[in-house]
Amino acid sequence: MSKAILSLIFSIFSTVIIFAKSPEPFTAPELQVASSIANAAIKQNEAYALVESLTTEVGPRMAGTAGDALAVKWGIAKFNALGFDKVWTEPVTFGTWQRGVEEATIISPFRQPLVITALGNSVATPDVGLQAEIVQFDTLDDLKHAETGDVAGKIVFISKKMARFKDGHGYGEAVGARSSGAVEAAKKGAQAIVIRSVGTDSDRMPHTGHMNYLDGVTKIPAAAMSNPDADLLMNMLKRGKPVTLQMKLGSGPGPDYTSSNVIGEITGTKYPDEVVLLGAHLDSWDLGTGAIDDGAGVAIVMSAAKRIKELVGNPKRTIRVVLFANEEQGLVGAKAYAKRHAKQLNKHIVGVESDFGAGKIYKISTKFKPEALPIAEQIHSVLEPFGVAWGNNKATGGPDLIPARNLGMSVVNLYQDGIDYFDYHHTPNDTLDKIDPDSLSQNVGVYVAFAYLMANLEGDVGYFGTVN
Amino acid sequence: MSKAILSLIFSIFSTVIIFAKSPEPFTAPELQVASSIANAAIKQNEAYALVESLTTEVGPRMAGTAGDALAVKWGIAKFNALGFDKVWTEPVTFGTWQRGVEEATIISPFRQPLVITALGNSVATPDVGLQAEIVQFDTLDDLKHAETGDVAGKIVFISKKMARFKDGHGYGEAVGARSSGAVEAAKKGAQAIVIRSVGTDSDRMPHTGHMNYLDGVTKIPAAAMSNPDADLLMNMLKRGKPVTLQMKLGSGPGPDYTSSNVIGEITGTKYPDEVVLLGAHLDSWDLGTGAIDDGAGVAIVMSAAKRIKELVGNPKRTIRVVLFANEEQGLVGAKAYAKRHAKQLNKHIVGVESDFGAGKIYKISTKFKPEALPIAEQIHSVLEPFGVAWGNNKATGGPDLIPARNLGMSVVNLYQDGIDYFDYHHTPNDTLDKIDPDSLSQNVGVYVAFAYLMANLEGDVGYFGTVN
Repeated sequence: MSKAILSLIFSIFSTVIIFAKSPEPFTAPELQVASSIANAAIKQNEAYALVESLTTEVGPRMAGTAGDALAVKWGIAKFNALGFDKVWTEPVTFGTWQRGVEEATIISPFRQPLVITALGNSVATPDVGLQAEIVQFDTLDDLKHAETGDVAGKIVFISKKMARFKDGHGYGEAVGARSSGAVEAAKKGAQAIVIRSVGTDSDRMPHTGHMNYLDGVTKIPAAAMSNPDADLLMNMLKRGKPVTLQMKLGSGPGPDYTSSNVIGEITGTKYPDEVVLLGAHLDSWDLGTGAIDDGAGVAIVMSAAKRIKELVGNPKRTIRVVLFANEEQGLVGAKAYAKRHAKQLNKHIVGVESDFGAGKIYKISTKFKPEALPIAEQIHSVLEPFGVAWGNNKATGGPDLIPARNLGMSVVNLYQDGIDYFDYHHTPNDTLDKIDPDSLSQNVGVYVAFAYLMANLEGDVGYFGTVN
Repeated sequence: MSKAILSLIFSIFSTVIIFAKSPEPFTAPELQVASSIANAAIKQNEAYALVESLTTEVGPRMAGTAGDALAVKWGIAKFNALGFDKVWTEPVTFGTWQRGVEEATIISPFRQPLVITALGNSVATPDVGLQAEIVQFDTLDDLKHAETGDVAGKIVFISKKMARFKDGHGYGEAVGARSSGAVEAAKKGAQAIVIRSVGTDSDRMPHTGHMNYLDGVTKIPAAAMSNPDADLLMNMLKRGKPVTLQMKLGSGPGPDYTSSNVIGEITGTKYPDEVVLLGAHLDSWDLGTGAIDDGAGVAIVMSAAKRIKELVGNPKRTIRVVLFANEEQGLVGAKAYAKRHAKQLNKHIVGVESDFGAGKIYKISTKFKPEALPIAEQIHSVLEPFGVAWGNNKATGGPDLIPARNLGMSVVNLYQDGIDYFDYHHTPNDTLDKIDPDSLSQNVGVYVAFAYLMANLEGDVGYFGTVN
């Protein structure tokens, strides 16, 4: 739909409004325009072109690598090419982590190579590797309750399988083994830990992801193996004989690095200092090309903001697209953003982040003040024809919104269908072919409607913090 | 079903037969027993236990490796444990091929690592690797028709995608690029060849497989890349700028090695020197654990023969299970078998091989003399309730049957549903979890009925050769 036609629609409704002023937060014309531009945006494939560009021209962009630097340049160039009014970067400094050699072989009772990958932040094994008997636990909890004598000197293996759900909640149930397993294993004297990948696939590809150490607890090497490898190991263990694993990891800390949050704005006409924040993260893991995590999100939020400007011009309030640095290794860019903008967060009317792949949006939840719920209701009425159900008013926001949310920013979740997200998440399989262009466009349409309405809202939905 | 119950059924029908002698090749009781023991076999999970054992206790068993030797030991031990009447090996000597380092990176216009694997038989690149511009062709034919000047000095990339079909015929359409690509590329002066994997998946896993050189044509390195990598490369090429690839392969020939065809027999009571040959191949590629290629086949034919002996005792004719050596690198064991047994092939009443995964059998084809077609018809009548349709009388047999078929042996195809076979074929993903136990058991049931009938047949279905 052309800008001219949309302007016409707008002007017709502007006439109507004189005779039928609504008591609702949004006028009927506003809702109609939101719906129209969402429908126009959904017919575009700009977001797909953006994620194609990011995955083809940049590819893997793990925080602190050459790909990270390229991605920052890419983000600046794309914001400019898309016609954003303001484009800038904000530096983010962090300690890097570097992947090295990754090898594992079952030595006995049956010698077989395994496919493993180091978990992000893992220390290395000795150069020659290490070799020890496997001690298997079904869950992290079982490890926590184990006797030290059963664990000391061994390699811990946690075999918990992640369950598949549309909303991905199996991740929360399984990821503890990845994030805290090394600490719990080390407390009981284990030499290393290997976990069944936190993923729902049956591909012989391990899933990487960040893990944590704790001050005062020995840092032991930590790796994930693919689901078929975990099955193989379980089958060997079932035979009741000791299983010995040899493993070698070359990973470890690298020098400090300064990357950037990359930010582009469509400046508000009436309330330029009030911000509707659309977020995604620009970094990825190194194994794939970062298509679904989070190239899709980057493309969705950039494209949505651009479409609004192109279709109906700048809204009353500023739409700020933030491409966060280094989400994967601890929300580093998000924390920096919240710290730097803490005093303006009372002017961040709402934040929403796209970081769950490219599946269709099927539900909206808000975290608004109670008296603002009619606003949520009206927004939902526009999104409903796109297949978006109403959730609740307990939104938590995407990961990069946590620091700002904790300082009081109101947040929204636009939930994506993630039924296959954890098949590919953090693996070499996170590539462009996993994105369905139609689903991606549906996301853009929903973000367009949502952001347009929030950016034209008179009033606010609540600020839950205190400006220092 | 117990052997006792089956004996009872048999004796009832043996009585009936006196009053109702059929003019058909098989009597009604024989058909009934075939059906009964197939139904009994289908309820067993012995084949699954066998392939679990092979993949867990041996795993990868590329011809000429330690895994090959272990697999031979495994085969002998399992035949003995299953109660086969005769178990022996026949030596097979061949030149080995060894995999080495495998690396590829697109250097320009956008630097990105690719996931590749050497094709079996490929020579190495120079130790430092080689670097050249990519010249892309849609198909092997396009390469054949290219100008030498467009190819010389470059790395040829053939991008043809394999199509997905239940009968896997997309393989035949795509595999030429793998088998003959290096020769055609070298004739035009290419430095190396990389192909889109011959596979139907979207996993970032390359598919290996055997390739050929031609005397008098320079041997150039040959590799396959995963489908997502081929997509990435195509996206770079679409931008119209030269794409430069750096690749390194460490593969090459190793010393000669002697492996074995491993053979187990259920000896015939009436015609012990007449053979119903059930084949599969014991070797696998090195990347996975060889579950579908061809652990499944090994398990199906071993289990089928054993079930017949256990359920109804030895048949009139010998059932010989042959686990062929080194199928993957040129039907080496199959050729040795045909050569060694050339003079007995007129006593090989029929050959059938299971080498297409673990999907359900949906069709039978024969290559019988015309006057034996009523036999095929009766066999099909028993298999039909198991979901097996009639094909035609133009069966070609499995790959390991080709040398004996070419010397006159009659063959049958029991076609398996291979809709997902080429998702996993020759990749690290060829692992146990890809096998559905129920489908595997259906295979055993069908083989039981088929082999039982063929082993009790009075008469023959044709020998198409001449005993020298």
